[in-house]
Amino acid sequence: MPAHHTPNPNNPPVDSPSILVVGSGAVGGFYGGKLAKAGARVTTVQRSDFEVVRQQGIAIESIDGDFHFTPHEVLRSPGECKTPPDYLLVTLKSLPELDIPTLIRPAAGPGTVIVLMQNGIDIEEPVARAFPDNPLISALAFVCVQRIAPGRIRHLCFGRVTIGLYPSGPSAAVGRLERLFRAGGIPCQVTEQPRTARWAKLVWNAAFNPVSVLAGHATTTEMLAMPECEQLITEVMKEVVSVARLAGHELPESTVEENLRATRRMEPYLTSMALDHMANRPLESEAILGAAIRHGERLGVPTPCLSGLYAMLTLLTRKRPGESETTV
Amino acid sequence: MPAHHTPNPNNPPVDSPSILVVGSGAVGGFYGGKLAKAGARVTTVQRSDFEVVRQQGIAIESIDGDFHFTPHEVLRSPGECKTPPDYLLVTLKSLPELDIPTLIRPAAGPGTVIVLMQNGIDIEEPVARAFPDNPLISALAFVCVQRIAPGRIRHLCFGRVTIGLYPSGPSAAVGRLERLFRAGGIPCQVTEQPRTARWAKLVWNAAFNPVSVLAGHATTTEMLAMPECEQLITEVMKEVVSVARLAGHELPESTVEENLRATRRMEPYLTSMALDHMANRPLESEAILGAAIRHGERLGVPTPCLSGLYAMLTLLTRKRPGESETTV
Repeated sequence: MPAHHTPNPNNPPVDSPSILVVGSGAVGGFYGGKLAKAGARVTTVQRSDFEVVRQQGIAIESIDGDFHFTPHEVLRSPGECKTPPDYLLVTLKSLPELDIPTLIRPAAGPGTVIVLMQNGIDIEEPVARAFPDNPLISALAFVCVQRIAPGRIRHLCFGRVTIGLYPSGPSAAVGRLERLFRAGGIPCQVTEQPRTARWAKLVWNAAFNPVSVLAGHATTTEMLAMPECEQLITEVMKEVVSVARLAGHELPESTVEENLRATRRMEPYLTSMALDHMANRPLESEAILGAAIRHGERLGVPTPCLSGLYAMLTLLTRKRPGESETTV
Repeated sequence: MPAHHTPNPNNPPVDSPSILVVGSGAVGGFYGGKLAKAGARVTTVQRSDFEVVRQQGIAIESIDGDFHFTPHEVLRSPGECKTPPDYLLVTLKSLPELDIPTLIRPAAGPGTVIVLMQNGIDIEEPVARAFPDNPLISALAFVCVQRIAPGRIRHLCFGRVTIGLYPSGPSAAVGRLERLFRAGGIPCQVTEQPRTARWAKLVWNAAFNPVSVLAGHATTTEMLAMPECEQLITEVMKEVVSVARLAGHELPESTVEENLRATRRMEPYLTSMALDHMANRPLESEAILGAAIRHGERLGVPTPCLSGLYAMLTLLTRKRPGESETTV
């Protein structure tokens, strides 16, 4: 495979696959840049930032050292991708209104490995059904990144990823991607049970994300500083662990306490859902809360706190009809 | 007692006590007006609306028929009240920052009956301690009223009051006030256990008030239309009933279901807490939620839903320090 990149002398390329990143936000830009550093030919799809990124690439201000990412190509849509990529990395939000199979169909070839780097649970099945012959990798990003301007991303903390073949088992495509992430400086954990890994990440997201929004864009520090709020966070986490267990995803006993402890050690932190809400973007309520609640209903596990948060979040972000005002 | 009022030919005055209303909002204006209709000499304390009300009185657009209320006197502060009134009616919000004993001290005489028409529980004790020799009436208003302009109030629904001597028992002062409310056209229920009546009202307020705020000023109809939200409302109500029971205030088994049923029959309805939040006014979180949670802690009754709502409401209305933004 010819190398169309400048090799990084510190991290010599272990491989040079072509990667198409679909999802032009901070996560896609950051990991796309890291994979390019590792030697991959990374093409991005940009919507609003197309001109800036095509001319200047993406500048990444990172706690691990600033770097610049010049995509191999910059496209306006997946359909402009002429040769099917080795990897198609989806870094879009998990939103019911996004039909990912239809979005990526024009770019995916018979051998393309599809990588879903998204939040939530149960996000893989529609893609697996639409592409039954393509290897599908489920990926989780533990990272704080933010688009701060067109073509400009800030990386604030963390960065590790967990990847695994969907639905389970070992895979050469996973091993190759793992080596590439590591060559790019990204700690990468491989799991043969990526769905369990999704439930494990959901424990944190289902608790901190909705509460941060409802509490008026509260940081993790503000949430945990208030005993009643820490109690709420703890209850939600316990509900997710209970549902996960009945759904066949046994998480360690210590999960809740470990999540709380790790979060207490973090700097004050605004969740992605709070940032989405502040920017008036749609929230990942269904993939993060709705899906867990439906599993709970199916399995007979009560989820009063999860359901309450989901209800208030759904109402908070509703389209408002004219409402009559009265007072009690 | 001389009558300084024009008797209402339809509801001849049964009595003509002097009443000072402290609290210049919609509740004070509405009930002050009704008591004046009954023949009482009602003086009001006005802050922002002083000039308008002194010149024009208060216009009340009511579903039961519009009427006009010309106070006997309009004062700027309780201290301007030259003769201690027979009744001092407090219609202020229940807020920790309001020191009601200090506020009303200048106006209360030895024989003045103090009437606290406010939301929440445990609101009477500071006043009872500060005025040990004055009869103290605890009053609950079930009414939708709203100040729509200076000197202008809209009465949308309900109107009944429940009154009782604090802490308990019969009282001539209560009977006299009951007759006066009724003469003014206000359905009035007398209770010898006003604290239990407060817990009963709290069942509704502790559920619908905070959820309406957190859910983005949702109406009762919007809240009950969503199964997960109805479930949350139900859980909160059950928690309040459990705490009330252990606190010695046994409420009927049917309380929760009756509250839900009555609310389903109502027109779409924005709670007073939602209106306060929309107007950027302080919320009655402590009197409505905090007090119930503290009773729960004291009595060993878990209140996860109440505590969660309290936590998010407290964070939502916090004073914000500079916050660092990150994303996960």
